[in-house]
Order: sequence, then C-alpha cells, then structure tokens
Amino acid sequence: MSEPVDFCRRRYSHLKEQMEEHGLDVVYLLNDAGGGARFKRIADTSSGVALIVPIDGVPKLFCYSVNINSARDESWIQVEQLESRAKAKEQIACYANQHLREGSTVGAPLGGFNHAGYAYYRENLKGELVDVGKTVIPEVFYGLHPDEVRYHRRVSRLADVACSAAREAMRPGVAEYEIAAEAEYAMRREGAEHTSFQTIVSTGPRSAYSHGWPTSRRLKDGEFMLVDLGPSIDGYAADETRTYLLGSDPKKEKMLEAMDMAVEAVIQMVKPGVECSELDAASRRVLKEHGYPDYPHSLGHPLSGFAVPNLSKTSGHVLREGMLFTVEPGIYLSGYGGVRMEENVVVTEDGFEQLTKSPRIP
Amino acid sequence: MSEPVDFCRRRYSHLKEQMEEHGLDVVYLLNDAGGGARFKRIADTSSGVALIVPIDGVPKLFCYSVNINSARDESWIQVEQLESRAKAKEQIACYANQHLREGSTVGAPLGGFNHAGYAYYRENLKGELVDVGKTVIPEVFYGLHPDEVRYHRRVSRLADVACSAAREAMRPGVAEYEIAAEAEYAMRREGAEHTSFQTIVSTGPRSAYSHGWPTSRRLKDGEFMLVDLGPSIDGYAADETRTYLLGSDPKKEKMLEAMDMAVEAVIQMVKPGVECSELDAASRRVLKEHGYPDYPHSLGHPLSGFAVPNLSKTSGHVLREGMLFTVEPGIYLSGYGGVRMEENVVVTEDGFEQLTKSPRIP
Repeated sequence: MSEPVDFCRRRYSHLKEQMEEHGLDVVYLLNDAGGGARFKRIADTSSGVALIVPIDGVPKLFCYSVNINSARDESWIQVEQLESRAKAKEQIACYANQHLREGSTVGAPLGGFNHAGYAYYRENLKGELVDVGKTVIPEVFYGLHPDEVRYHRRVSRLADVACSAAREAMRPGVAEYEIAAEAEYAMRREGAEHTSFQTIVSTGPRSAYSHGWPTSRRLKDGEFMLVDLGPSIDGYAADETRTYLLGSDPKKEKMLEAMDMAVEAVIQMVKPGVECSELDAASRRVLKEHGYPDYPHSLGHPLSGFAVPNLSKTSGHVLREGMLFTVEPGIYLSGYGGVRMEENVVVTEDGFEQLTKSPRIP
Repeated sequence: MSEPVDFCRRRYSHLKEQMEEHGLDVVYLLNDAGGGARFKRIADTSSGVALIVPIDGVPKLFCYSVNINSARDESWIQVEQLESRAKAKEQIACYANQHLREGSTVGAPLGGFNHAGYAYYRENLKGELVDVGKTVIPEVFYGLHPDEVRYHRRVSRLADVACSAAREAMRPGVAEYEIAAEAEYAMRREGAEHTSFQTIVSTGPRSAYSHGWPTSRRLKDGEFMLVDLGPSIDGYAADETRTYLLGSDPKKEKMLEAMDMAVEAVIQMVKPGVECSELDAASRRVLKEHGYPDYPHSLGHPLSGFAVPNLSKTSGHVLREGMLFTVEPGIYLSGYGGVRMEENVVVTEDGFEQLTKSPRIP
C-alpha cells in the first residue's frame, strides 16, 4: 500500500455518498489514458483496467495477468484477474450484473468508452448506463484534501529544481535535448518517480510551438528557451513552465514582463467562488493591453487526475477549496518565438497557495 | 520538415495503392493514443488530430490551434485548423464528404474511435465506414524500409547506453528513482528526444511486477534490479530491458541464464516466413525446460508506431522483411523477484539484425 491510501478510502466513501444521491446501483470506473491518475486516486494503484463499485457490495478491481502482482500488492481493493482480452468485457459485466436488476442504473464516464465497449455494455448490463462524467466524477475528483496538499508541495518543489537546472544549463550552442537531460536528471535525483508528460524544451522560433518537444536544435544568443515539465510521485504530478532568454533583447524582455504580469494577475484573483472563465479572461486582458495576440489554448487545467476545474473562455466551473490547477497563458509569435509561464495553484479556504515557486524572471 | 520525410511520402504512396486495391474513396487516420507514432510515420509530425486522405484529391491534416505552428512547420501535408472541439467532427466530415458520394467507402481504424465519434461519422459521412485496422493499416505500417533501419540503430544504441548507465549506478542502498535518473540522463545527453514510455526500475520483489515503475525503494545486496526503457528520436523508439543482479546468488543467476537462453533461442529463429506464434512458443519452451512458470504476457510487440507483428500465443502474423519488434520473455516469481530481458530485432532479407546490444549477462 502506498502512502496516501487514506485519501483513497475517503474518495471511495465520497463516491458511495454520491451514488446514493444520484440513485446509482453500480459505478464503473475505467483506467483509460485520461483517467489513469484518477484511477490511482481511488484504487491506490495504476495497475488494473476497470473498477466496479456496487452500492451494496464490495468494490472489485479488474486486472490483466500482466499487472496482477503490482495490483494485488498496491491496492486496498479486491483484485480479480481478467482471463483474456476477448472475455474481459463479459467478466466485468458478470460482476456488475450480480448487483443489478431490471430498472437499476450503472454510472460510468461514458466519454472514456470506445465504440465496441459502449455497445457491449449497453447490450449486456442489466441496468441502464448513465453518464456520470459531468456529475459524480467532478464531485468526487474535485481536488486535494487539505492534508493532501503536502504531497503536491513536494512534487512542485521538484519542478522548481528542474526548471532551475534547465536555466543553469543554458549557454550558446546547447542542444534542446541536453537541456531536457539536465532538467530531468535534477528532478529524478531528488525523487521524481515519473514525468507525467514528455518534457518540452523549445528554443528560438520553436518556442512559439505550444508543445515543442526537444530536438537537436542548438540555442543561440538572444533566443528564448521554453521548458515545460511534470515530475510526479505516487501519481501526484506538478506541471511547471518557464521561458528564459539567453543574453538580452529588449523586445523579448518586454514579452517576459507582460507574461509575468498576466500570471500574477490571475493568481491574485484565486479564491473560492471565483468563476474560472473570469480568470481566463483576466490573463487575456493583460496580454492584450501589452499589445500581444490572444493565445490558442485555455488558461489552465487540473492536475493529478482531478476532473475539474477547466479554465477556458467558456468554462462554467467555479473555484472551491482544494481545487488544484495550472495557470499558463502564452504569447506565441510564429517564426519569432514564444513565452509561456506556468504555475500550479491550489485553492485554500480564503484564497490560494502557489505551489510552484521558481523565479519567473530570474 | 524532419529527416525521414522521404519515408513518410513512401508510406503515403503505399497507402494510396492500398486504397485503390481495397476500393476506398477516403481513408481517415486518427492521431489517437495508440496511433501517435504511427501518425508521425506518414505525416512527419505528431501535431494534428486527424488525417483525411481522398483517393482523388489532396490529403489534409486537421489540427487544433494549440499545435498549429508545429504542424505547419513539420508536416509536408496541408494543414487545416480546427475551429473548436464542438465543431471538429463537422469540419473533418465536411472535407471527407467533398470526396464522397452515395455508395462511397471510407476506411478507418474503427477501434480508435470513441463512442461519440463513431456514432457521428456513421451518421454524417456520405460513404460507408469500413474498418481497415486489420487490412490496410498493417500493410502500410508493416515495418522499416531497409534504408530506414539506421534510424533504429541509433535509438537502440541510446538504449544500450542507458542500460549500461543503470548497471554502473547499482550499489547497495541506491533508490529505484536514482537508477532511473542515471539511465535517462545517459540517453538524453546522447540525443534522446523522448522516452517513449515511463522508465521502469524495479528492485527486489518488485522486479516480479511486469511494470514496476521506480519508487524510493532501495536496492539490497543479492537482489535483482530490472530496468526497461525507451529512448526515441523523431518518433523512432527503442525498448530495451535488462535485469541485473547485485552481488551473487546461485538461484537468481540460474534465472538470468535461462532467460538469456530463451531470448537467444527466439532471436536465432527470426527470418522471413516464420510464424510469430512459433517464436512465442519457443521462448516458453526454453523457460519451461528450466523449470520456470509461464509468463503472463506476449513475447513481444512492434515498435515506433508500426502495426505488426504481435508475438503472442495466438498471433496469426508471419514475419516479413522490415518487421521490427521486441523479444521479451519474463520469469516472475511473486514475492521473490523477476527477470526480463528484451531485445529489439528487425527482420532482414534472409534473417535478422539484432538492434539492441548491451550485454544481457555482463
């Protein structure tokens, strides 16, 4: 069992309450690409492909033989081995059906099912499939418990260390992949178990890519270097971006200053009750005032498998205590260069805690 | 444009020939989680979410604004920006429909579509949706062109370097994450742009997990350390596993020797025309002869986005020149420890080339 199993059990209890409230007889959680970290937040393992939670009965985690040893060692939930890919759906449906009868309802995040899976379960489950992707899921996976914030402080510190290592490795002629090497080495040595996404290092005009994965391109004097990285421990994952300028360039320094102000303006607004779309708008307003074009993505996203909040122009989410998210506006000038700075923030009882702390303009 | 654009254009021509042969008017390729590297093998970018190839007309790559700069710079294919997530399917279908009429057929790997996507396209495309996941896709993405093998030699060399670095860092008390740090640092410094999956480092009883991601567990004398890692450059990704023993232990040394023999037995059988299920069986036979239990996964899988071959008990695939795959049997003794060794092999005109070369028993 890994450290934060206590939080897993709390989330499980929360899920059961939500099932009661929504009249669900069974909930089916998938361990899909998007839900992997989320699955871990309740099962305490990322092994296993599906979790069946009956309202009256024990939860069961279904796992292929390939990962059965780790699933059994890590999870507090009973593990059932799936016999084969061909029979997996049948085996999962069989357990769910033991807790269903005519008129029952099965909650699942239906967006995570592929076509064949959806068709099979609609046909073969005794109950009616109900999408809980926008109801139960965001309620149960809304964010960090106050006692859980310390785990995120730890991974955020690793992200800070990695950004600083990237900055220290900057010099004319250094390759993007060499910067990635130094940044990852620094956070790994200090305890990062994973990188929750591929480290981004993009220099010069490539910094205008939102996702400029490292190549053999070499940094030149007067150019930007953008780094975006995500150390994780036990499924808690930070996500920090910095853009550094090698040498000096007045036009580029202005971009960095405007970005620093945009990020700060947003963070200072964070507290329970604030609408996420307002945060997004605030960042765009600051950048516009400084004469920069609008950026082609949302202001931020949740971390570590939590389902909310999204911080986009059209987000309907409202901040509540424990919500954990990124603040990451950008300026992207195609063919010239780009600047993005990204902080991780958690909403506190009456404001915010900024988790990532490496200097935005060192 | 990145280096191997020539191979992208060749695959595109191959795809057009296959469309002709199968009577397809349009092919729809998704850039889904599984298909990411595959998408790159034809579009020369991993930016973009869908590729529409009409039999009579220009191919078009659809991309959200967030990745538009990189898609336009990297791909040889015309890029169309998707206006919004809500309208993306409509925009993609609109272009496909310009090349369809009553009775047309649209080939797509349907397993990659989620429920909503499948329902939308079945309803809104003028042609009939046909699954090409087991026909056109494995034919076009069967493996490496002979001239392309050199790119895989390069990433395999990086995997060798990383395994050696992990071995050199072995000592009593070293943490799994520290081993991951050294292994990744070594391959990154030499040019790895990505790790194509999360590096595995598992020690002691955790080496019996197929996927034992690194934790803070510390290695002890007489224990196994299993490392499994995947450096990639330009979407070409190696995948090498080694298991090392710290100190000595006769029972564990026997496991290593049996595994070495199982791997070697398989590799020596590789040549065009061999059935993949026979390779899988050979590995299990050697391990059984040495008294070890059967392992709970297939012998191997393709690399770098190629669609074939799978090397399982029930695989119907037959080797042909250019096929690129892993050979990775395992011995997993729950609570005690495990051994896996993994090589990357490409099928040549009359045999094989073993790409990964670090000593299996140093």
